Amino acid sequence: MLDSLKKAVCQANLALREYNLAPFTWGNVSGIDISEGLVVIKPSGVAYDALQPEDMVVVRLSDGTPVEGKYKPSTDTETHLELYRSFKGIGGVAHTHSLYATAFAQARLTIPCYGTTHADYFFGSIPCTRELSDQEIDGAYEKETGCVIAETFCGTDPLKMPGVLVAGHGPFTWGETAVQAALNAAYLEEVARLAWMTSLLAQQGVCISQHLLERHFFRKHGSTAYYGQDKEDKE
Amino acid sequence: MLDSLKKAVCQANLALREYNLAPFTWGNVSGIDISEGLVVIKPSGVAYDALQPEDMVVVRLSDGTPVEGKYKPSTDTETHLELYRSFKGIGGVAHTHSLYATAFAQARLTIPCYGTTHADYFFGSIPCTRELSDQEIDGAYEKETGCVIAETFCGTDPLKMPGVLVAGHGPFTWGETAVQAALNAAYLEEVARLAWMTSLLAQQGVCISQHLLERHFFRKHGSTAYYGQDKEDKE
Amino acid sequence: MLDSLKKAVCQANLALREYNLAPFTWGNVSGIDISEGLVVIKPSGVAYDALQPEDMVVVRLSDGTPVEGKYKPSTDTETHLELYRSFKGIGGVAHTHSLYATAFAQARLTIPCYGTTHADYFFGSIPCTRELSDQEIDGAYEKETGCVIAETFCGTDPLKMPGVLVAGHGPFTWGETAVQAALNAAYLEEVARLAWMTSLLAQQGVCISQHLLERHFFRKHGSTAYYGQDKEDKE
Amino acid sequence: MLDSLKKAVCQANLALREYNLAPFTWGNVSGIDISEGLVVIKPSGVAYDALQPEDMVVVRLSDGTPVEGKYKPSTDTETHLELYRSFKGIGGVAHTHSLYATAFAQARLTIPCYGTTHADYFFGSIPCTRELSDQEIDGAYEKETGCVIAETFCGTDPLKMPGVLVAGHGPFTWGETAVQAALNAAYLEEVARLAWMTSLLAQQGVCISQHLLERHFFRKHGSTAYYGQDKEDKE
Repeated sequence: MLDSLKKAVCQANLALREYNLAPFTWGNVSGIDISEGLVVIKPSGVAYDALQPEDMVVVRLSDGTPVEGKYKPSTDTETHLELYRSFKGIGGVAHTHSLYATAFAQARLTIPCYGTTHADYFFGSIPCTRELSDQEIDGAYEKETGCVIAETFCGTDPLKMPGVLVAGHGPFTWGETAVQAALNAAYLEEVARLAWMTSLLAQQGVCISQHLLERHFFRKHGSTAYYGQDKEDKE
Repeated sequence: MLDSLKKAVCQANLALREYNLAPFTWGNVSGIDISEGLVVIKPSGVAYDALQPEDMVVVRLSDGTPVEGKYKPSTDTETHLELYRSFKGIGGVAHTHSLYATAFAQARLTIPCYGTTHADYFFGSIPCTRELSDQEIDGAYEKETGCVIAETFCGTDPLKMPGVLVAGHGPFTWGETAVQAALNAAYLEEVARLAWMTSLLAQQGVCISQHLLERHFFRKHGSTAYYGQDKEDKE
Repeated sequence: MLDSLKKAVCQANLALREYNLAPFTWGNVSGIDISEGLVVIKPSGVAYDALQPEDMVVVRLSDGTPVEGKYKPSTDTETHLELYRSFKGIGGVAHTHSLYATAFAQARLTIPCYGTTHADYFFGSIPCTRELSDQEIDGAYEKETGCVIAETFCGTDPLKMPGVLVAGHGPFTWGETAVQAALNAAYLEEVARLAWMTSLLAQQGVCISQHLLERHFFRKHGSTAYYGQDKEDKE
Repeated sequence: MLDSLKKAVCQANLALREYNLAPFTWGNVSGIDISEGLVVIKPSGVAYDALQPEDMVVVRLSDGTPVEGKYKPSTDTETHLELYRSFKGIGGVAHTHSLYATAFAQARLTIPCYGTTHADYFFGSIPCTRELSDQEIDGAYEKETGCVIAETFCGTDPLKMPGVLVAGHGPFTWGETAVQAALNAAYLEEVARLAWMTSLLAQQGVCISQHLLERHFFRKHGSTAYYGQDKEDKE
């Protein structure tokens, strides 16, 4: 079942390694078939080298019950599910431990919008969640991680801000597809790397103006976009 | 038309990737045929892997009108055109989002001339433009970006200082040819990387003397140069 | 003798290079056959390219006497032996000069537990030893290095904290096997790299809570672990 | 003439690229035939890809006169010659623009002996020269660069400290052979990289003790060395 989605999710997981975002097995991508209410996700702790589409695990969106697959799903599955429930219109979710994004997450800092590279992909500062409470950690920890992301995005359009830093942990990204979620993880890491290099150099805040942010974001996204070729992949 | 220029511009665009200056499709190089008043430039948002000379787009220098090509030209085309109009003697322009040069641009800092490596290629501190005004951003944004570069170079010889940082954005470089413009983008990034490493280490400013700057720059450039082989490529 | 252990130790030494932990020949891994009281270790100053299982050197655990091998054992052999004597249950030891872990060791700093990546593998801050005294340096220096590590771990379970920084020197790691010791060296370096990036960014200490540390460590280790596949490699 | 020396010098120049020490053509290695009073050096501004033993240039030690070769010698030749005249017992000299060593040179800082990796190869802090005077820069600049290095080493054994930073410029290293000089350039860069990482992390100076410095240096060098295999390459 869901053969083409499994193939896309497997490809998106392999893209994490290709983009150098997931040392060892530290990363996972999922994709959703919204009409079936089913999510396809990477198995837990399986090496990327050996990953095949048929290794992907299928779980139910509503309660996480495994529906198909010889492996256990990623331990982060409940976080993915919570994001699909909270963010309408997303088709894929990615989680990595990429270096610079994780450094910002460990420092509990948002990534300020220092330049147009950032503005091309993320519509403003990339938020960092609050820390989870002891009760949240002791309870349904992975689900609560998803809830605290949703709480952070209250009022924010997740498709204009396709990523977040979980405090003390690392980044999650999403997109219209699993492959786009993985690509957004790569954009987030590059933007975080630039911001890290800028932070160490700059004496004070140097965010770009709201005007410049809007110009760049809408040059690439939405009905007024004029970057790229017509009717082609806008990347 | 312009087959050899298209080939050179395509090669220069591929060099950006080879020098590791342009993650994803974030970069573009153009070249000019000054006698024809035509500029050849990379198409917008096309992956480097697939780039062929025949994909290059030809536009008119005077007003940017597309003259030949199946694709739309780079969204940064108007910036390139403005540079060709302002800087006499240049034959190519390159734009990248290379890491360290972009960090300086995002920090709105010039790159100080900290050493002889810098002095070998850039005759003094590499300038950073002022920020564009809201009116400039809302208007002909890409053309205004070229204008603010030209404004920054008032009184500076662009062939002795073949690069600039656009505040909050990233570097532009140029040279006598498209290939040289791409090579200068690589030199700028290496010099920016050295300067970044130096800035974090040094307690105060440590620029080299005007004497040493002149000795190194003119060891490699102009009629008194004695670096490299006679009548051969000076690189 | 000990052919399969020699093979494993050779493979673990080659893994140091594969993980990019040991520039030049700066690193060594050993493994123990506890029932025979024999330790197999890399020869001193032999290039990784040429390393074969039969090049490994066998020494006696009790006193370091060479038992087999055409080469001299690593100069750090006495440190390894002291660790096997002090830490019950370990089967392999690795020593590297990996970049970020060595930077912390040179700065005489512990690696704080800044995030869940750290908590997945190390149960708390990774300790840094005190400096050796002049007498210890002039005496049985390599053995004393082992002793000062054991002193640092007084009361700490070495299998929950499978690594240490020797002040002014670099990291040692261990594990149930030689291959696991090398893998732990790779985890230590990645955790150190993340901590270095975080330290430069963060204004103050940002360690994760004891609750979150326990949740992540025991998600991967011990009887309550639920990461990875059942009865399979937990990495 | 000097065919085996040309081969060794060519190999040592290619090693610079292999060790990633010389971006573009920014580096050169020479070797000396002391009995003939002749020095073999890389030609100026020739790409590494094409470098062949027969491209090496032979110059006279006494006055730099070219003796053989179709190319002009490196512009830095006079610095090399001055080092051969000042430092008895060296057989090769290398010059690079390697990243971290150049950052220290640009910051006009010595590299403190922060750890045993440093102590294994350099017997104390690696010095940085004073800046050249305007007269020295305007005069025989490259020869004066050699003189200021020699001045810095007054009273220091160049074989126990096989490298230096030239203020505002970059590193020079040397050794008993051209190949050893290139290898020392790689050791210097690795030690500089570790020191840079340590400097940014540490709040105050953390140099190792003179005792530990001596223990490590003489573990690898001189009549009391016990690192490596007998009668074999000590690296």
